Amino acid sequence: MAKQKPRTLSGFMELLPQPQQQMERMMELLRRSYSLYGFTPLDTPVIEASEVLLAKAGGETEKQIYRFTKGDTDLSLRFDLTVPLAKYVALHYAELSFPFRRYQIGKVYRGERAQRGRFREFYQADIDIIGDGKLDILNEAEIPAIIYHTFTALGLRRFQIRVNNRKILNGFYAMLGLSDQAPDIMRTVDKLDKIGPEKVAALLTGEEIGLAPAQAEEILKFIGIKGCNGEVLAALENWRGRDPLFDEGLDELTAVVRHLGDFGVPEDHFAVDLTIARGLDYYTGTVYETALLDHPEIGSVCSGGRYDNLAEYYTEKQLPGVGISIGLTRLFYVLGEQGMLNPDLPTAPADVLILPMTEQLSPAIALATRLRQGGIRTQLYTEQKKFKQKMAYADKLGVPFVLFLGEDEIAQGKVSLKDMATGEQALLSPEEAQARIAAQAAAGWTLPPIVEK
Amino acid sequence: MAKQKPRTLSGFMELLPQPQQQMERMMELLRRSYSLYGFTPLDTPVIEASEVLLAKAGGETEKQIYRFTKGDTDLSLRFDLTVPLAKYVALHYAELSFPFRRYQIGKVYRGERAQRGRFREFYQADIDIIGDGKLDILNEAEIPAIIYHTFTALGLRRFQIRVNNRKILNGFYAMLGLSDQAPDIMRTVDKLDKIGPEKVAALLTGEEIGLAPAQAEEILKFIGIKGCNGEVLAALENWRGRDPLFDEGLDELTAVVRHLGDFGVPEDHFAVDLTIARGLDYYTGTVYETALLDHPEIGSVCSGGRYDNLAEYYTEKQLPGVGISIGLTRLFYVLGEQGMLNPDLPTAPADVLILPMTEQLSPAIALATRLRQGGIRTQLYTEQKKFKQKMAYADKLGVPFVLFLGEDEIAQGKVSLKDMATGEQALLSPEEAQARIAAQAAAGWTLPPIVEK
Repeated sequence: MAKQKPRTLSGFMELLPQPQQQMERMMELLRRSYSLYGFTPLDTPVIEASEVLLAKAGGETEKQIYRFTKGDTDLSLRFDLTVPLAKYVALHYAELSFPFRRYQIGKVYRGERAQRGRFREFYQADIDIIGDGKLDILNEAEIPAIIYHTFTALGLRRFQIRVNNRKILNGFYAMLGLSDQAPDIMRTVDKLDKIGPEKVAALLTGEEIGLAPAQAEEILKFIGIKGCNGEVLAALENWRGRDPLFDEGLDELTAVVRHLGDFGVPEDHFAVDLTIARGLDYYTGTVYETALLDHPEIGSVCSGGRYDNLAEYYTEKQLPGVGISIGLTRLFYVLGEQGMLNPDLPTAPADVLILPMTEQLSPAIALATRLRQGGIRTQLYTEQKKFKQKMAYADKLGVPFVLFLGEDEIAQGKVSLKDMATGEQALLSPEEAQARIAAQAAAGWTLPPIVEK
Repeated sequence: MAKQKPRTLSGFMELLPQPQQQMERMMELLRRSYSLYGFTPLDTPVIEASEVLLAKAGGETEKQIYRFTKGDTDLSLRFDLTVPLAKYVALHYAELSFPFRRYQIGKVYRGERAQRGRFREFYQADIDIIGDGKLDILNEAEIPAIIYHTFTALGLRRFQIRVNNRKILNGFYAMLGLSDQAPDIMRTVDKLDKIGPEKVAALLTGEEIGLAPAQAEEILKFIGIKGCNGEVLAALENWRGRDPLFDEGLDELTAVVRHLGDFGVPEDHFAVDLTIARGLDYYTGTVYETALLDHPEIGSVCSGGRYDNLAEYYTEKQLPGVGISIGLTRLFYVLGEQGMLNPDLPTAPADVLILPMTEQLSPAIALATRLRQGGIRTQLYTEQKKFKQKMAYADKLGVPFVLFLGEDEIAQGKVSLKDMATGEQALLSPEEAQARIAAQAAAGWTLPPIVEK
């Protein structure tokens, strides 16, 4: 028979069993972390009606959509988890309780240009808190705590959550009479790290934007405010009273910073950063980015912000919210590239492999049943192979223990347990063996999936 | 602004938060159960190249495929998890260890006619064991144990795993000289439960199939073998020695039945059932179905079998395997319809809702942080609402506890904890409150998601 060459589409991540175990572990920790903060899991279809999904979209996003017809229905694959959330909340409004806190970890689709490390199918791991009409500022203050707890649980230490408030930026440019130029200014200012203040000033006062030198100077002074959180907030107080939006933003930012300690976020993992702006049209208040300190080239690994109107394309209801998103597939890929996935994380499919050494299999099966009832992930190996091949199998899977059950062991009511890491083999009672395997398995599952060198 | 009416496509399940929690719980238990038996989790793309995915497909299946082009690539959404597994194993053959035991829980797509309880996007929860060249019969014997453990963990009691062997059926029809008519006969015999033996005999001896009355009689006698597993096997021994394939099948079935006790499967949850045939062309040995005894109308909730060649469309390698599949979305839907989802399962997004009763929020936030560090799913409610509305929110979410923190409590270093089920409120130390919330949460998570009435 002619064979079809098997392949996986480029831009689609398909992992081997061991990295898949690491990915599963990360997802489990995300679910657990989000749940601790009172978020409920949600699952929405991958396919939506195009007129629903694309009610808002346009431009670059629309080009990337996987869109097709089935019968006479115009369908699209979701390109993020925010639009489906907006649809969900508008559709099920009457049945939900607000604030509605949901997390969703799911695949989304974007037909991006194929490129190493760019994915067309990728997981996003999102949380959002949606209010009905209003949403208290404390929800925005809680977000850094969730980011901190989540990344710490994954094993990261060297990261920083960077926060700004779009009202401060918009208010500041308004007080300079530069509201119209604000987008151009923010785009230019965004280059500060790369090109330095002189060149930014030159661009700001250049023909295209056309600011006065004093305006450029004030902007650079403002953007350049540095220091610990208290110092930055104190410096910002110098602009208070000149624009109501600015003052509101400063109050919000102050409220977000105020409770960091109560929320358990160490000061050194958080920074007010006036250069953070995020998407210009969607976010309206607090904005968040998360940087890996030793890998600035990766960019933000968790971003989001406050928005005033989640579902305006579907409903008259005013539904403000705040949310963050982790691009999980890309994060996993980058961590792998950087060698930051913990090699000690258990990735074997079983905690123990049982090798029966007798024709009669009943004792080995009964032992496997007993171990499984004790919560131990157990594989029973009964293929007709040479002993050496059986051990090679155990070795390749990375199982921590092999358990032999031969005539002698059965006669004595014992088992032979081999520790594959040390090579040590011991004759133990089934209870002893079970306790040893369980202890090592439990220890393995406390390890974080990420390690920093 | 004109609004787009929000809607979810028909045939696509989208659950409200509380049922979603039940679904999540079921998935978690499936992952845990499959892992106990040494299966490794796998995740493959939802989209595959059409020429890869459809290498084998044809007829009815192909019509249901979601197939489309993006750029100039012909793409299809997976319609099961078996074809992607075949592709995966063929593609990554050199990097896998055999037997390769994987589980996969993922969405698949079939453009079926819209109908109540029929889904176009649905979860399958599959396990397969793939051998390289050979696969020991004990793997087939282990499958009923996995089914038994999995459904028991979900909370089901009244179910039965029904097993047959296709070699017995094919061997039996061969010894009657009826190999060519075997498919027609099996289709007819399948109606036995509905129309009774007389009508089946009439159909078998009718014009279309044209068997002799003695042949029909022998078939009915064979198919009608009933009794406990030992009795059925003993009866089958009467046909031994007349066809080698039959004898092989009988040996295999005997081997599968022999170790049920060692595998922890009670005899009353398992039956040799000669009427089970499953798909005619794919399965080659043991076949499995799982019936809910009080709901025969639901049909099999977990089916599968042994196949000789998983990936013949992709590789010359002989890769025999055995697998089972649970149609999770349909199962969940049916359980809901039958009122079998456990109403006592915790479905609230949090174990406790904290209501700060003071302007100053620090103590409430610090308490939330402390509870979360103790593993308690905690929501902090700070919206500006009337007390009654706050309590209504807690009630609607179904949180088991509300914790009040007012001036008095703070002054005394205590908290007021209200048990929402009993209405009792107690002034407790934070430690006492934490212990009580944790104990109730832990008890809740031991409840199964399914209950039988």
